Amino acid sequence: MCQPSKFIQDNFLLENTFAEELYHEYASDMPIIDYHNHLPVREIAENQIFDTMTKIWISGDHYKWRAMRTLGIDEEYITGSASDREKFGKWAYTVPYTMRNPLYHWTHMELDRYFGISELLNSESADRIYDLTSEHLNTEAFSTQNLLTKMNVASLCTTDDPTDALEHHQKLEKSSFKTKVSMAFRPDKAIFIGADSYLDYIDKLAQVTETNIDSYDRLCDALRNRVAYFHDNGCRLCDHGFEHMYAEEFTETEVKTIFKKKREGLNLSKEEVLKFHSALLQFLSECYHEFGWVQQFHLGALRNNNSRMLHKLGPDTGWDSIGDFQQAKSLSKFLNTMDSMDKLTKTIIYNNNPIDNDMMASMIGNFNDGSIKGKVQFGSGWWFMDQKEGMIDQMNSLSNIGLLSCFIGMLTDSRSFLSFPRHEYFRRILCNLFGKDIENGELPNDTKWIGKLIQDICYNNAKEYFDF
Amino acid sequence: MCQPSKFIQDNFLLENTFAEELYHEYASDMPIIDYHNHLPVREIAENQIFDTMTKIWISGDHYKWRAMRTLGIDEEYITGSASDREKFGKWAYTVPYTMRNPLYHWTHMELDRYFGISELLNSESADRIYDLTSEHLNTEAFSTQNLLTKMNVASLCTTDDPTDALEHHQKLEKSSFKTKVSMAFRPDKAIFIGADSYLDYIDKLAQVTETNIDSYDRLCDALRNRVAYFHDNGCRLCDHGFEHMYAEEFTETEVKTIFKKKREGLNLSKEEVLKFHSALLQFLSECYHEFGWVQQFHLGALRNNNSRMLHKLGPDTGWDSIGDFQQAKSLSKFLNTMDSMDKLTKTIIYNNNPIDNDMMASMIGNFNDGSIKGKVQFGSGWWFMDQKEGMIDQMNSLSNIGLLSCFIGMLTDSRSFLSFPRHEYFRRILCNLFGKDIENGELPNDTKWIGKLIQDICYNNAKEYFDF
Amino acid sequence: MCQPSKFIQDNFLLENTFAEELYHEYASDMPIIDYHNHLPVREIAENQIFDTMTKIWISGDHYKWRAMRTLGIDEEYITGSASDREKFGKWAYTVPYTMRNPLYHWTHMELDRYFGISELLNSESADRIYDLTSEHLNTEAFSTQNLLTKMNVASLCTTDDPTDALEHHQKLEKSSFKTKVSMAFRPDKAIFIGADSYLDYIDKLAQVTETNIDSYDRLCDALRNRVAYFHDNGCRLCDHGFEHMYAEEFTETEVKTIFKKKREGLNLSKEEVLKFHSALLQFLSECYHEFGWVQQFHLGALRNNNSRMLHKLGPDTGWDSIGDFQQAKSLSKFLNTMDSMDKLTKTIIYNNNPIDNDMMASMIGNFNDGSIKGKVQFGSGWWFMDQKEGMIDQMNSLSNIGLLSCFIGMLTDSRSFLSFPRHEYFRRILCNLFGKDIENGELPNDTKWIGKLIQDICYNNAKEYFDF
Repeated sequence: MCQPSKFIQDNFLLENTFAEELYHEYASDMPIIDYHNHLPVREIAENQIFDTMTKIWISGDHYKWRAMRTLGIDEEYITGSASDREKFGKWAYTVPYTMRNPLYHWTHMELDRYFGISELLNSESADRIYDLTSEHLNTEAFSTQNLLTKMNVASLCTTDDPTDALEHHQKLEKSSFKTKVSMAFRPDKAIFIGADSYLDYIDKLAQVTETNIDSYDRLCDALRNRVAYFHDNGCRLCDHGFEHMYAEEFTETEVKTIFKKKREGLNLSKEEVLKFHSALLQFLSECYHEFGWVQQFHLGALRNNNSRMLHKLGPDTGWDSIGDFQQAKSLSKFLNTMDSMDKLTKTIIYNNNPIDNDMMASMIGNFNDGSIKGKVQFGSGWWFMDQKEGMIDQMNSLSNIGLLSCFIGMLTDSRSFLSFPRHEYFRRILCNLFGKDIENGELPNDTKWIGKLIQDICYNNAKEYFDF
Repeated sequence: MCQPSKFIQDNFLLENTFAEELYHEYASDMPIIDYHNHLPVREIAENQIFDTMTKIWISGDHYKWRAMRTLGIDEEYITGSASDREKFGKWAYTVPYTMRNPLYHWTHMELDRYFGISELLNSESADRIYDLTSEHLNTEAFSTQNLLTKMNVASLCTTDDPTDALEHHQKLEKSSFKTKVSMAFRPDKAIFIGADSYLDYIDKLAQVTETNIDSYDRLCDALRNRVAYFHDNGCRLCDHGFEHMYAEEFTETEVKTIFKKKREGLNLSKEEVLKFHSALLQFLSECYHEFGWVQQFHLGALRNNNSRMLHKLGPDTGWDSIGDFQQAKSLSKFLNTMDSMDKLTKTIIYNNNPIDNDMMASMIGNFNDGSIKGKVQFGSGWWFMDQKEGMIDQMNSLSNIGLLSCFIGMLTDSRSFLSFPRHEYFRRILCNLFGKDIENGELPNDTKWIGKLIQDICYNNAKEYFDF
Repeated sequence: MCQPSKFIQDNFLLENTFAEELYHEYASDMPIIDYHNHLPVREIAENQIFDTMTKIWISGDHYKWRAMRTLGIDEEYITGSASDREKFGKWAYTVPYTMRNPLYHWTHMELDRYFGISELLNSESADRIYDLTSEHLNTEAFSTQNLLTKMNVASLCTTDDPTDALEHHQKLEKSSFKTKVSMAFRPDKAIFIGADSYLDYIDKLAQVTETNIDSYDRLCDALRNRVAYFHDNGCRLCDHGFEHMYAEEFTETEVKTIFKKKREGLNLSKEEVLKFHSALLQFLSECYHEFGWVQQFHLGALRNNNSRMLHKLGPDTGWDSIGDFQQAKSLSKFLNTMDSMDKLTKTIIYNNNPIDNDMMASMIGNFNDGSIKGKVQFGSGWWFMDQKEGMIDQMNSLSNIGLLSCFIGMLTDSRSFLSFPRHEYFRRILCNLFGKDIENGELPNDTKWIGKLIQDICYNNAKEYFDF
């Protein structure tokens, strides 16, 4: 058994005393605003307790699955019918092979921060750690709400479909749970008219809104209705996941005809699909502006690459990757269209491919017009970029081309209740960037001011931006 | 008030004694050849004195404007009617928020190198610094010519439209001012036939050349006429700013027809516009070769993204950003077309998106045929890339894929008389790259030879390349 | 004459004691599997001796040529009729100007590792080194086979055309030479139906296979026949070099018609060419799967940019560069097509433009399904990326997004018998990455385990993957 020395200790990722001061004196105690994640709200509302580490840690985590598959581990031990202990054992076997991948850091930070386990996970320690964590998990202290409280999460936003009733959010709102649990409206299924299941989705939306969605106008009405409903339930954000922005020219007549064709079971051309995407996105974006929401765009993922496995396991099971779409012109056009109507609401843009970092850091500057501090934001490293190098690259691009000081900072974007140490990870990296600059003489040794900037990035900017 | 320690002192950006030796012994005293900038030549010719720091430092600087807008400062205090002192105050307030952006370094280097002010600029020091700099500015020592002399500028090139009479350049040529002030010919307005104002521009060109530009051939004649006129006035460079190179197939007949259609007020298709761009660019490039000029191409900016603000403030006021155009094939085709005719003149290619660095560093190698040292150049980090990381990335790409030793080095590309410390900034970064390699054992400890390479990059290569 | 101190000594590129331990204790003695190169197999089979350093070192090396041309050296001294000594002298003159380019390291590593020369090469040392190396070269110890043995090359794969008779490989197979010399099947000439010389090539293939290739089916038969022949001769790999993957929709009928049109001398549209590429690639890929081969794809080079020089000197003489093609969708589609048929064989993907690093590191994860460790590989830094920064970027992308531990590591991809120190270069860089992570506390101080991972990457993974 190998014991880490400096590994994941007090000054993990902090390379000098400036960085240490900034992290320990300014960053570490700030509450967390996790403004975008995919936590299952029901599990929070019900204050669920997980009985094994496999269930809370491996069952929903396609990052871990991809690593295991790459190492040649059979699907039986990943999403298959092997026992929880066996699955955990395979993950433990995999961990030492993930060195230099963020999984290696996340794994050990999560074991330490939640369970106080500083031993390294591997085949030798697997059973011991499985037993110890399971013991902990089956206590009140490890209920979902207590896990969030333990991490000092002031507020969080789940991601929800327009057809959601939001009953779990309502229950939480009335409960004594101190973390504010809000939501983001994610209506992509209503936009993607090319999907086979589109009309089924529209029927579901019709049912929820108790309307007959027989025209594009009715669709818009139904969606605006849901925006209002979400708003009444405290929602102040939305989210979209697109390969690239949709900003084709269209006319109202065209769009109505396209929807009608779809309803009649006719095939749509690629161009028609794009026009429809563009039109409905614009409509929704006007709604977001009307309600004063923040809109988020996650751009550039290439999803569902492996149809064989997709059919076997469904979406979001580890067959997605980074795309290389052209982004600038359509993104510019969309933002400009909204801005020209004076309807550009606060906006966060995330990219999935780091080659877009500098372009995006410069694009936001075109629409930051002095009306609001950091109105258009370049979002933190997303998905495959959510690791040390990805975060540094995103923050350096933002620093070089925009103002890092106005950044609203980190979010987990995670489905896991154990992922919150990623905020700590981000904060250490952030403090280290400034700390190294001070040491190099690239910044003055004014840790008081820089500490303020860091607290802004960790918490204050997001608090102000979202008005949480 | 916070006092910097190592910040912007003698060994700023120099991380070891090799770097220090290289900078202080070899680089720092080399004269400056600022072979591409946007200084207003009239202000040099008239040896203008600026009465406030706002006028010389903020009024024309959209880098600063973008930062202020991002921070949420009202346009009134940026380009609006607030007083110079108020505007300066808002900029001073902004400066501490620009930490990690190049503005933070430029600001303090410029205050120090021109005014001897080592105090940090912020709200507290704003008035004091405003008064002190204004006092200095209103002296002969801070006239435009004396500012250039103070920075040891041996020569510079402004950027001028073909319709310019060049009277200020002529005046300077006859004056006793020791800095050689030359120019670059920038005929983009004659190329962009899709622009609404195109025919107005052609009329202006017709007037200047006292011709009737009623055909494509006459247009070519007029432009060649102006190339010759510029040449007679000492011009040896030209410059173009394109989203990407234009290298469509075309016939002379097609191009003539396209110009005729435009003259007749007819609409042009996208394809026609591109053919025209390609044809006229090729014609001009043949002229440049005939006169032995250096041609420059600035590729990849995405301009005028925010139409609302563009209409309010005009172009070049901070609404431009980085594009993500495909560049390689058209660039290759253009260079090859010229080379195949044995008419490829010396060429510098600049990219606005760092993702093109390696491609461009490799592309120049295809046309460096042994005829001239560094015939086709990969230009220094441009615009959004004109910062420490951008410069390092450009130089590393050039080093890894080409020969850094043949590089003609830095230029300001600036509208500001106070921007020349950027050469110092570049030189420090350059020396530090070599210094670190020596320390790491990646280069032999031969500071004499490496000092020579650095002097070449700082001055000698450009002097030889441009024959200044 | 300048003597290096730390330059290319024992701990070259190793920045701390962890890195030193990892390199010297674990990496340095591992045998080399050079699984992809362009060595001329005849020269190995005949155990050739080269009489001058120019012939073995400069005559085939377009990396050196490009550097010399960039410095302004006349082609006469590069590929022209100057004497070997003169050419060597020009290269020696060039070397000090290549500082920071990989050529500078390769040059001195090769002089040291093969000839024991630690003196720096430049104009002053040129004659001395020319004489000394020539003396060595003309001895048995410097025959091609002994050079490979000296470098501890366990096995290597040359790259061969389907029409090759493989007589040199057969001769080597029967010889006592201990390095296993295998091959890769490279049928690109049979795919590129748009090429002027295509039908000549098909005729040659017909002759070799003693068939009449008068239809697409016959072409497929002939190629499968050659795959089988190569397989019988020990071949287990193939290789393709494409701008991007070909994954257009096609029907068998269309493809047959396209081939027929070509045979009849008719012109093919761009779309027809792409359909043909896609179809034949898919057919070949099915063959590779049938025979259990590893398929390699080198994507993204933009070749033959300079037609004037290409006509003068032929292909592969230094006029190629990095392209910026969109890669993700076609790559995904090709891999998915093969995977959907359960015919995706082991695959290595190399990119020529580092902007594709992260995308490719994520793409391989979509098809690593747990069946084989590291089934789809992201290949080591290729061509212009085969330098320190390029290798680090590739390994960091793979680390951040996939599993570095499953990587099959380095290959020379070289035409030169003196290029094998690049494996040492790679290994030092690899060990330094891990060593720095240990020092920073980003990895635990477990050099035993990490040493194992490094040995896997240097040798064991490739041995297992290729079953050599």
